[in-house]
Amino acid sequence: MYIEDTIAAISTPQGEGGIGIVRVSGSLAEAIGLRLFRFCTGAAFASHFLHYGAVVAPDDDAVLDEAMAVLMRAPRSYTREDVLELHCHGGMLVVERVLTAVLACGARLAEPGEFSRRAFVNGRIDLVQAEAVMDVIAAKTEASLALAQRQRAGALSERIETIRRALTRSLAFVEASIDFPEDDIGETDTVALRSGVSDALDDIGGLLAGFDEGRILREGISVLIVGKPNAGKSSLLNRLLKENRAIVTHVPGTTRDIIEETVNLGGLAVRLLDTAGIRHTDDVVEREGINRALGKIPLADLVLFVLDSARPFSDEDRLILDAVQGKTTIVVLNKSDLPPVIDLPPTVGEMPRVALSAGTGTGIDDLREAIRTTFLHGSALDSREFVAISRVRHRDALASARSALHRFLSGLGEGRELETLAIDLRDALSAVGQVTGETTTDDILDVVFSSFCIGK
Amino acid sequence: MYIEDTIAAISTPQGEGGIGIVRVSGSLAEAIGLRLFRFCTGAAFASHFLHYGAVVAPDDDAVLDEAMAVLMRAPRSYTREDVLELHCHGGMLVVERVLTAVLACGARLAEPGEFSRRAFVNGRIDLVQAEAVMDVIAAKTEASLALAQRQRAGALSERIETIRRALTRSLAFVEASIDFPEDDIGETDTVALRSGVSDALDDIGGLLAGFDEGRILREGISVLIVGKPNAGKSSLLNRLLKENRAIVTHVPGTTRDIIEETVNLGGLAVRLLDTAGIRHTDDVVEREGINRALGKIPLADLVLFVLDSARPFSDEDRLILDAVQGKTTIVVLNKSDLPPVIDLPPTVGEMPRVALSAGTGTGIDDLREAIRTTFLHGSALDSREFVAISRVRHRDALASARSALHRFLSGLGEGRELETLAIDLRDALSAVGQVTGETTTDDILDVVFSSFCIGK
Repeated sequence: MYIEDTIAAISTPQGEGGIGIVRVSGSLAEAIGLRLFRFCTGAAFASHFLHYGAVVAPDDDAVLDEAMAVLMRAPRSYTREDVLELHCHGGMLVVERVLTAVLACGARLAEPGEFSRRAFVNGRIDLVQAEAVMDVIAAKTEASLALAQRQRAGALSERIETIRRALTRSLAFVEASIDFPEDDIGETDTVALRSGVSDALDDIGGLLAGFDEGRILREGISVLIVGKPNAGKSSLLNRLLKENRAIVTHVPGTTRDIIEETVNLGGLAVRLLDTAGIRHTDDVVEREGINRALGKIPLADLVLFVLDSARPFSDEDRLILDAVQGKTTIVVLNKSDLPPVIDLPPTVGEMPRVALSAGTGTGIDDLREAIRTTFLHGSALDSREFVAISRVRHRDALASARSALHRFLSGLGEGRELETLAIDLRDALSAVGQVTGETTTDDILDVVFSSFCIGK
Repeated sequence: MYIEDTIAAISTPQGEGGIGIVRVSGSLAEAIGLRLFRFCTGAAFASHFLHYGAVVAPDDDAVLDEAMAVLMRAPRSYTREDVLELHCHGGMLVVERVLTAVLACGARLAEPGEFSRRAFVNGRIDLVQAEAVMDVIAAKTEASLALAQRQRAGALSERIETIRRALTRSLAFVEASIDFPEDDIGETDTVALRSGVSDALDDIGGLLAGFDEGRILREGISVLIVGKPNAGKSSLLNRLLKENRAIVTHVPGTTRDIIEETVNLGGLAVRLLDTAGIRHTDDVVEREGINRALGKIPLADLVLFVLDSARPFSDEDRLILDAVQGKTTIVVLNKSDLPPVIDLPPTVGEMPRVALSAGTGTGIDDLREAIRTTFLHGSALDSREFVAISRVRHRDALASARSALHRFLSGLGEGRELETLAIDLRDALSAVGQVTGETTTDDILDVVFSSFCIGK
């Protein structure tokens, strides 16, 4: 498929650095390069060759920046179109000016993910791989990066393709039987059909079973620390931040009364929700502070309920206990270095619990392990072979395929008409194809790619 | 000059984007590329050719990322050494892993600015140009970018070189006269010497005169808005933020009670110091709020003293007036859309003032213009030829050269010994040479380059 217009965007991260890249894709790429780039030697692009020179303004030929330019001719490029890259100094203003010059020459600003969308539309990668490219970029831990790289390299696509092939074979058989009604489906054929579809169902089931872990690897989890005053919430937060590699995160639109600090807990990206506003208002009554923290519970995947084991269980603790009912919670018995005083009510006794001292650090490893095993099995973190779906979009498509296949199997058992059975198989195939993008509609593609970053 | 070891760093800005680059410079660059890069086709680097393939881990050959790799062989590279660039997906973790792999192969982590330092040491650019590279990257306004690009392209270096050549000629003449003492310096020679040195002094004086503007273009100015409650500070701040392109700035280490918001006031980068902490504490007594704002005055290059012209001049206004004595201040008579009531005391009358309405926007242009002309003449902003020194380092070196030349001229007038005169000239030459880095010592180079960003 050929797309008419030429797109351009800044492809390096926003900010200051040594190198900033403006990327152009489309039929105008070479012409724009020839118009804006002054070669130091020569006057033409050799494909994939990094030329030294300068980028000039299109109106008055004033030098915008010293630069390197490279043209990658179709189809040997990321989008399979002609791609031009202008490598300038990595300042925000200078890169912006070069982009403006490119746009003045007839390119239009690329939408988020539009380069990857062209790579997809032009058949270079499928939809799962395109999504995985963004996951590679956003990965915060080794395990999430490894999963994303496997998806990007096609490991998930291959599993989907296996399912698709099996279902296509079954559908072909059913359709052939419709076309030649004289050849009735015999017992042997039914067994073969059932077995092929069951295998596909097993494969789909396997992928669906891995979803929770895949999603958690991809997105990480959010953890809220609650506890009465002086239970040791801040010490615990600081201990977790100090002992684990903190991950720099940019959270656009973060409100002032909640701050996320992300740490890498042994391969799991954990966003610690820090209710900073509460800590910064010294004169707010304590009960009010607890109430505001409890209001954040719905935002978290996990609550760490911090208790001071050297003090009796209090009314404030009970207030918190009531609030965390039904929420995934780990009870942290802090101050394990002091003589134990606390007497836990039965409802607390049922929750997983860890004794530790945030002050000395004793027991922090146990907490880390408890958090990990609450969400991940070992295989997800350690195996080089772990392949999973990792987005709600994948899960919904596969779940819908599974329903259709169950309908098919019961229909087959009940001896329904072949036409009805064929519809079930087609539905399943279409749902499976949505994962890799084969049967995905434009509006879904819009949604998928709009979450990409600009310039990719 | 040849530097033994091989350095590496991430050369794209920190953050997420389409492309992240790990740059390697030094004799190991090619070997590291061959070790870590799996070519999709071929098995060797063609200089300046962008190869497609994958980066693998050095220990187990696991694929770290799909990547492009380019080797630029010495001397056709930024550092004039062999330079390898690995272009990966622009995620923080994935780029970090590729960097780690490069370091495992024998490169060491580059210090800030070390690539540019090698470009300087190997004679590709002089010190002024190296500094200008950083200014290009950091430029926040068109005018500052234009000045930086002129410096980077060598316009300032040329002016310095002219001075250096003149002084070298004078020194050669004086030294020749020392060597041949029988040829006494005659009247004609003295006139020629005096004239040559005076020309150099004029050039130096011209550069020193441009320093304030050069520095302000490069660094921008900081502006603090003060005024009693309801004088219209917030409206003015919002008006300035809204009507002028806001510039995204990353200010590491910003404390919570002062936030900078930078806007582009017609080519001048203006950092509006926003004493956010004050505005967010509703229950602090008003006088306390004013006092805390006044405490920030030393941080600002300019104070905007906002008065409510529809109310009488009050005790609170007087408190502020006392605090801004001796500080560059513009009096803003706000609420010019209402009937004027205020009666200004004589000390206010001496200050530049602008009447405006922050609510309607009337008069904002006048304020913008008043801020600009307080700091810049038209030439600095508008001229394509404006070349200036822009760093204290430049100014100090040239001021020291000027002193030495003044000593020389008075010595020449007093008929001092040629040896003494030669020393003055040598001092001046050495000082001038410090600007371009010809006579700069290693510890000064350390200071200069340590302010660079990593990867450049």
